[in-house]
Amino acid sequence: MSHKSDTDYMNMALQQAEIAAENGEVPVGAVLVSKDGEAFVSYNAPITTHDALAHAEIRVIRMACKAMKNYRLIGSTLYVTLEPCTMCAGAIIHARIGRVVYGAADPKTGAVESLSSVLSDQRLNHQPVITSGVLADACGRLLKSFFRERRKR
Amino acid sequence: MSHKSDTDYMNMALQQAEIAAENGEVPVGAVLVSKDGEAFVSYNAPITTHDALAHAEIRVIRMACKAMKNYRLIGSTLYVTLEPCTMCAGAIIHARIGRVVYGAADPKTGAVESLSSVLSDQRLNHQPVITSGVLADACGRLLKSFFRERRKR
Repeated sequence: MSHKSDTDYMNMALQQAEIAAENGEVPVGAVLVSKDGEAFVSYNAPITTHDALAHAEIRVIRMACKAMKNYRLIGSTLYVTLEPCTMCAGAIIHARIGRVVYGAADPKTGAVESLSSVLSDQRLNHQPVITSGVLADACGRLLKSFFRERRKR
Repeated sequence: MSHKSDTDYMNMALQQAEIAAENGEVPVGAVLVSKDGEAFVSYNAPITTHDALAHAEIRVIRMACKAMKNYRLIGSTLYVTLEPCTMCAGAIIHARIGRVVYGAADPKTGAVESLSSVLSDQRLNHQPVITSGVLADACGRLLKSFFRERRKR
């Protein structure tokens, strides 16, 4: 097991976001690292998979749950290039993810610090540790250039 | 296409909830009716499927999206025996479900009227019509007897 930093994992998540962009999807990527250091990767894919719920976070949580045959991912860390939305924040709590690291904030739908703070809601039965702003510029740039290109077409 | 009432569909959802209970899962069931009247059914299954996200609502939304090859379920109605949680409320918005009908309120984690009101949040880009309390007693009784049995063991 190698010792990777938050930046290393966020770079992996950025590579996944680029795959989403190539597919014509909003470029968001995610990496889930289990408590034993196993890494799972995924990218945003609602349109191409015909699945409204196929955000990068949802896909990687499901992938890790299936691989570990466990519906809880205790002690795991989720890296994602964009601040999670309400749905994904709820999913993170259900999966008992220990720590969430994200890149760019999402002023429109972010549910960690922007629109609401689901992950810090003491009324829910789990609160992950949160780190934000890791490679935020690179993560945000990828999104901005995607939407700029889309408007051109 | 037959003309079924909200009560008819909620009874179908209750039958699904009973399947969940038989599987040892929290008894919640859901029915999604497309705008053309096609019905999809599912039940809560996180433990048995090793998937933290496998709530009845998530499973039935995914099923309907795949079947209709569309990541948006515009004009559809979702019936669910229990008030949706934060994750499922977010999913309902992403899928652009037109109407949500639920049975029992969930004081601990309900995100429609109990803990928060995600489905009425005007800052998000979709607000479904909401009907609550349909067969609420039957939906709630099933949950209460499940938890009573579980405490006994």
